[in-house]
Amino acid sequence: MPPIIEIFSQGEELIRGQIVDSNAAWLSEQLAGMGLPVRRHSTVGDNMDDLTSLLQEIARRADCCICTGGLGPTVDDLTAEAVAAAFNLPREFDPVAYEQIAAWFQRRKRPMPESNRKQAMLPRGATRLDNHWGTAPGFALQQGRCWFAFVPGVPYEMRQLFREAILPELQRSYPHTPEKLVVIKTVGIGESDLQQRLEGIDFPGQVQLGFRTASDEIQTKLLFPHDYPDTGIETITLQVVQRLGEAVFFVEKPGEGKGTLVTVVGGLLRSKGKNLALVETLSHGLLASKCLGQDWLSASLVLPGLQEDHRAAERLAAMVRKQGRADYVLVQLCQDDARSLADEKSPATMDNVLFMGSEPCRCQQIQVSGTLPRKQNRAAILALDFIRRSLQQEND
Amino acid sequence: MPPIIEIFSQGEELIRGQIVDSNAAWLSEQLAGMGLPVRRHSTVGDNMDDLTSLLQEIARRADCCICTGGLGPTVDDLTAEAVAAAFNLPREFDPVAYEQIAAWFQRRKRPMPESNRKQAMLPRGATRLDNHWGTAPGFALQQGRCWFAFVPGVPYEMRQLFREAILPELQRSYPHTPEKLVVIKTVGIGESDLQQRLEGIDFPGQVQLGFRTASDEIQTKLLFPHDYPDTGIETITLQVVQRLGEAVFFVEKPGEGKGTLVTVVGGLLRSKGKNLALVETLSHGLLASKCLGQDWLSASLVLPGLQEDHRAAERLAAMVRKQGRADYVLVQLCQDDARSLADEKSPATMDNVLFMGSEPCRCQQIQVSGTLPRKQNRAAILALDFIRRSLQQEND
Repeated sequence: MPPIIEIFSQGEELIRGQIVDSNAAWLSEQLAGMGLPVRRHSTVGDNMDDLTSLLQEIARRADCCICTGGLGPTVDDLTAEAVAAAFNLPREFDPVAYEQIAAWFQRRKRPMPESNRKQAMLPRGATRLDNHWGTAPGFALQQGRCWFAFVPGVPYEMRQLFREAILPELQRSYPHTPEKLVVIKTVGIGESDLQQRLEGIDFPGQVQLGFRTASDEIQTKLLFPHDYPDTGIETITLQVVQRLGEAVFFVEKPGEGKGTLVTVVGGLLRSKGKNLALVETLSHGLLASKCLGQDWLSASLVLPGLQEDHRAAERLAAMVRKQGRADYVLVQLCQDDARSLADEKSPATMDNVLFMGSEPCRCQQIQVSGTLPRKQNRAAILALDFIRRSLQQEND
Repeated sequence: MPPIIEIFSQGEELIRGQIVDSNAAWLSEQLAGMGLPVRRHSTVGDNMDDLTSLLQEIARRADCCICTGGLGPTVDDLTAEAVAAAFNLPREFDPVAYEQIAAWFQRRKRPMPESNRKQAMLPRGATRLDNHWGTAPGFALQQGRCWFAFVPGVPYEMRQLFREAILPELQRSYPHTPEKLVVIKTVGIGESDLQQRLEGIDFPGQVQLGFRTASDEIQTKLLFPHDYPDTGIETITLQVVQRLGEAVFFVEKPGEGKGTLVTVVGGLLRSKGKNLALVETLSHGLLASKCLGQDWLSASLVLPGLQEDHRAAERLAAMVRKQGRADYVLVQLCQDDARSLADEKSPATMDNVLFMGSEPCRCQQIQVSGTLPRKQNRAAILALDFIRRSLQQEND
């Protein structure tokens, strides 16, 4: 039986929705990657009753629980008190923790407020988890069937403490064998269309098929058991890639590098020794913003709109090519006004026109729908994907 | 006694940390804003045992629970089955739900897969929540002390169903008096510096002071009880605004409009009848992308980098002003290369140079640090804030 692992987040800002719980997602992803999937995730605010009853429940049903937040110096930070109350443990002064907190302030040449003393009061029997990255020490303790680890909610400190203090403990308790994941990344094809294209493939029972729609790509995920033969992984991956065709821009294999649409387009341009300039209308700078630090993008000109007139696009491209010293130029033609763009119910039309050297330009008309930020992002991604497909077709 | 309200999110992608649960945060924020704060939030994956035991627990302890996800057509979508199993209810075919799903496919001229029939099978006694925005109907039912509302996990559909079907029900059940919230938005001052500036203000006990650091601004929040006198709200708000000085770009008052740095800069430019062009280096199009649909931005030119040479900036600004038909031009000078920009430990320096009509240009040097996306976003926001402060100073 795999261990029952839970995550417990504490914080008034979380339960009031003022911040999104990225800590829980990060921890879950780390644990799933280790072959130790999380079973449940719970959040409560700074309320003593809610905290103690949740701690008692978890002590009865889980083998391991990672808890974030509530370790700060203020009166709202109740975690240690709640642990003491839930499990009937006195809190004791930990001189080493106190020294560490005092040293943290000394290094910053700031006086230590009296309130921080509270952070050195740990429930009896708890093991201190040294925090070299902030003031709040973490702590761990066994209660009922469950091993609890408490760490601060500050993401940077939480991650460091997870790596240094929790991970080694988990590896000792649960020797595991991580699964192998293949991620096939596509653009320009919807999730339902994508699922339809995969219909009829006879996946072996041990192979888990999943999909994830992100803002810039759709991922088809194939999860294999750790001992699945590499040749089998190759065969199944190839089958999926063939079904999805040109929409596939990258295949991420276990232990190999990661790729995004930006890095794939960069690789294609670099292999040809070419660079690129952009004239953005609907994406309005968002495409250039995704390419910061990419040496193949020579310049981008952002304009409010451009008439759908290919002659004018050609003149503009010639000017941009010359002034921006660019080999290739992509021009977005779009004449929707601000009001119709902001209307969620009205889709926007855009022409991507790509000028590559001496051959005639390549054109593609696209439609994007949804909220204004969604239209803008789709315009950026589909323009970039049009460049990718054009460069790949040129290779063929 | 206020009602005990919970949120329940279902999804393998959530529990594996592949996506962050923005639905829970959004719902929590809506409910807190109505004076109905959420007490607990729980997430489980596509596991029948976990789903049923969580549903049974919540039925015992909560008065209302909003549940997202698991209503899709695939075998992984277990919510309706889990509800049926947890509360011992048969599932029944709902012909109206079926018609709605079929109509959705008809409008899109696509055949309806047999698997979607499952979405019309609702637990006996449930009230259908019509979904006009997607295929999965929601449903609501009373179990134990708890009123459950089940809606799809797709954020757009979830939000629409919350507004149309859940909100009216909550307003009927819990006539509430929302608190009054004042949000003071600042840029260009850190949270700790900001807190220090507010030290010594004697806030009345009923007034809750909070802070929220977002990517584009820091918010100082003042939460007043619903019956707090308006003159008192005015006095306290003014005190805070005076302490924070020029860093304040907008004050959001109860029942009044919202403002962002982009809309504030737009208002200042419009009041002067001027428009603006940009030459972006470090923000690399991100500033323009935040201004899509704003008629006061005439153009933006994105360049990989620019030497810190104010003469060259002046020539470039003159060219952009002429070609882009702009009154004012902001030029970002930054010559850090891609490698040093990508280095989290090495801060980047940028000069903002603003050309406004005939007077000499205004300059500001800024330093931005952190990851590449953070540096880029700070560069965009601080450039925009420099424009805001310059326009306001010109007014004084």
